[in-house]
Amino acid sequence: MSRQFSLLLDRIHEIHDLQKAADLLAWDRQVIMPEAGDEVRVHQITTLRRLAHVMFTDDNVGELIEDAALAIDGAAYESNEASLIRYLRETYDEERRLPAEFVARVSEISGKAHRIWVRARENNDYASFAPWLKEIVGLGREMAELYGYENEIYDALLDKYERGSRTSDVRALFSATRDAIVPMLAAIAGRQHMVSDNVLRQHYDVDAQKKFARYIAEAVGYDFDRGHLGTAVHPFASSFSRNDARITSRWYPDYLCPSLFGALHESGHAIYEQNTHADLTRTPLARGTSMGIHESQSRMFENYVGRSRSFWNAHFPRLQETFPTQLRDVTAEDFYLAINKVQPSFIRVEADELTYNLHIILRFELEQALLTGDLTVADLPTAWNDKMSELLGVTPPDDTHGVLQDIHWTRPSFGYFPTYALGNLYAAQFFEAAQQQSPAISAELEAGETTALLSWLRENIHQHGRKFKPGEIVERVTGKPLSHEAFVDYAAEKFGEIYGLQ
Amino acid sequence: MSRQFSLLLDRIHEIHDLQKAADLLAWDRQVIMPEAGDEVRVHQITTLRRLAHVMFTDDNVGELIEDAALAIDGAAYESNEASLIRYLRETYDEERRLPAEFVARVSEISGKAHRIWVRARENNDYASFAPWLKEIVGLGREMAELYGYENEIYDALLDKYERGSRTSDVRALFSATRDAIVPMLAAIAGRQHMVSDNVLRQHYDVDAQKKFARYIAEAVGYDFDRGHLGTAVHPFASSFSRNDARITSRWYPDYLCPSLFGALHESGHAIYEQNTHADLTRTPLARGTSMGIHESQSRMFENYVGRSRSFWNAHFPRLQETFPTQLRDVTAEDFYLAINKVQPSFIRVEADELTYNLHIILRFELEQALLTGDLTVADLPTAWNDKMSELLGVTPPDDTHGVLQDIHWTRPSFGYFPTYALGNLYAAQFFEAAQQQSPAISAELEAGETTALLSWLRENIHQHGRKFKPGEIVERVTGKPLSHEAFVDYAAEKFGEIYGLQ
Repeated sequence: MSRQFSLLLDRIHEIHDLQKAADLLAWDRQVIMPEAGDEVRVHQITTLRRLAHVMFTDDNVGELIEDAALAIDGAAYESNEASLIRYLRETYDEERRLPAEFVARVSEISGKAHRIWVRARENNDYASFAPWLKEIVGLGREMAELYGYENEIYDALLDKYERGSRTSDVRALFSATRDAIVPMLAAIAGRQHMVSDNVLRQHYDVDAQKKFARYIAEAVGYDFDRGHLGTAVHPFASSFSRNDARITSRWYPDYLCPSLFGALHESGHAIYEQNTHADLTRTPLARGTSMGIHESQSRMFENYVGRSRSFWNAHFPRLQETFPTQLRDVTAEDFYLAINKVQPSFIRVEADELTYNLHIILRFELEQALLTGDLTVADLPTAWNDKMSELLGVTPPDDTHGVLQDIHWTRPSFGYFPTYALGNLYAAQFFEAAQQQSPAISAELEAGETTALLSWLRENIHQHGRKFKPGEIVERVTGKPLSHEAFVDYAAEKFGEIYGLQ
Repeated sequence: MSRQFSLLLDRIHEIHDLQKAADLLAWDRQVIMPEAGDEVRVHQITTLRRLAHVMFTDDNVGELIEDAALAIDGAAYESNEASLIRYLRETYDEERRLPAEFVARVSEISGKAHRIWVRARENNDYASFAPWLKEIVGLGREMAELYGYENEIYDALLDKYERGSRTSDVRALFSATRDAIVPMLAAIAGRQHMVSDNVLRQHYDVDAQKKFARYIAEAVGYDFDRGHLGTAVHPFASSFSRNDARITSRWYPDYLCPSLFGALHESGHAIYEQNTHADLTRTPLARGTSMGIHESQSRMFENYVGRSRSFWNAHFPRLQETFPTQLRDVTAEDFYLAINKVQPSFIRVEADELTYNLHIILRFELEQALLTGDLTVADLPTAWNDKMSELLGVTPPDDTHGVLQDIHWTRPSFGYFPTYALGNLYAAQFFEAAQQQSPAISAELEAGETTALLSWLRENIHQHGRKFKPGEIVERVTGKPLSHEAFVDYAAEKFGEIYGLQ
């Protein structure tokens, strides 16, 4: 390695260490920390984020990047070196548009807003959160202006989560998805009686749920020797290196789904991180390339694997052993139907595969309106409820089950929500390509095994980390840009069969 | 607050945040992290420690300190401001003697040596650890030369853990302690049959042990709303702010002592941190003032409270409820005797109150010999075993039960061990003073309660954090310098009564 490249790497490692330390502070805050520690913890996270920003945006780093770029001139586009230079040039330029004071302010206000939101949600008290949300929307606008954009203000923020995506493209994808889903939902509405999920809503011992969650996480390929399963009110995955990629889930004593699908979903995220190439360690490339591609991996394991008939044909007996009383007279097929019941509901994270995307479309539209100023924070709850009624035909009984349900707006992370639905579309397109390219995958999945699928994902997606942008990945892997078609085909076939539609 | 002082505080807060973040990385490493994450974790800790060092030793910080000192000129010695300036001047001067490269090297080598030691200890393989220990001893010498010293090389390192202590003073204290203990041990040796600890060595369900550990930690005043109890192979306490001060313990299914006294010991440490004054938050004063004074607090709750007759008169019934089978025919008095059985053994952390100090004297002497070069790393195991035989009359069966038992020599923390025995002496002297000054304390302790004791400790010791040096604290609180006398009196009375000595 050239001296110039090595000097750059030393600096990048150091900055990455700081960011990962801040990530651990944030993980711990949600999983371990006593609530009383929060005030100081927010200061600590803010200090580390600010320092990492200051160190990265130093003039000297720009020189290090350009010196290293010269030194590796001619390196292949796919090489780690060239990919790192590409990534750094782009983010260096962007990060320098944000003053350190702004980065610290975002961290501090978000930290405080999070505390207010937790209370507001508990007490169904939107009014107490509204002034903070107003401030967060202000930060979102400020950030968008600092980053800059050509067409829509939303573009500036969306791009940070889904590199290279434009709001207009996402709008078109969502519109096509919606047009396909709505008629399916209408058809299913008259057939609600065909599927019952009562079996999931019984008493399930929490310790036994935890044990089984470990079992299925491992079954789909999550490596506990390089991971950890914790408990979080809002499950998430977080990694501090490929050898320490953690998942969380939550445990309801009267509802089995959250623990099962929380664990599978977060395992999908963590499996992605665990399988980035070791050579990318301690660099910003050692991470899933975008939120949408990340979500495609969590959805892959949650839905394409974890809500499939074959998976439960293989693993239901173990679940039945774990809960012999609750599942005595239940078949794997009953269970498969129960976990795939389609029914409009209030809470996004508990939504089925079809209605889920409508929850996202709602947020996507409201976020844009908040940023442009077409919608005020004061009018948001009404707008939320109206849109729920329009898209899903249900109206939340209160703000806790409506506008206050998500953690995301405690920080100016506008542009994040759409990546969830994009993840569903990516997942479908990847899953289709994987099955076409590697026939072993389907055969194995029939037996509830994922080795061939994992190997395909590792080879085509995971190992690259952030070397390629989401658009590049999807083209490289599936030969075409992202489309709604694979998802719509998948959904039509799966739910058509379950509900006996045409 | 003056602008100058506020500028200094901003910088100090930031550096403190970094150090606390590194402390969390280290806590997590021992309590949560999968072993596979260790390599990168060591890099992360190293980066944060190095950065904190670089930031603190910057020329500009010296100017900030002196500008702030001028601005608060005339502030009382006891004031937070004057105390912070005193502390910063001293540590700034010291830290600047260590090059950043050296700080990073210590962190990195210690991190690696720790991994080697874990294996070596498991496999009773001193030879594999020896080259690393040699390097660690080299680092210790290098550090001592960088800090500088007048008389003995050991002084330079001891001073970092016990500010203002000299090796010669410690030697005199230990010698007096040893002279008093050895005859007691000789007398007890013939009376071993008088006390049995069989009751402690039965099967005790681990989950029930955890529950009871929470109960007694709370009973002595540890605040779980600002804390957390985790599991660690080598129990320790660590705090990230006064509102997040954590303890760990360990659980043996066949031996009750480690969980009980581990929890009480670490609670003592954490109670000290939880009760530093809120105004010291995010400064280096928000911490126990020295390792010896810290240890006095852990010993206070482990031994002076937790191994007292009155404590178990009050709390034994609850323990009996928790383990009704194991403790059916056991009285509180039987239990009191069992947990106070005196018997020379191999493992320091399991030693009784009398022999414990001899384990420390052994390490204190060997450390000095290693640093001066009078003892080589190759000869250390033999020297260890010889000294065990000389001081305690027992010879370890292997190095795992001998020279490899402690974590401390995986880093150049020579000078740390003596603070454990100093802690025993401080504890005795504080406990004596507390009882004399506040008669409510003894009365409450008779009922197993610690409110008055805690209040005395908070007022006299805890709240001050690091504002005063250990020597100042002991003089302020007890009116005299540290001596072995209170400990010897306490031990003679307690064990004289138990073993019927003159």
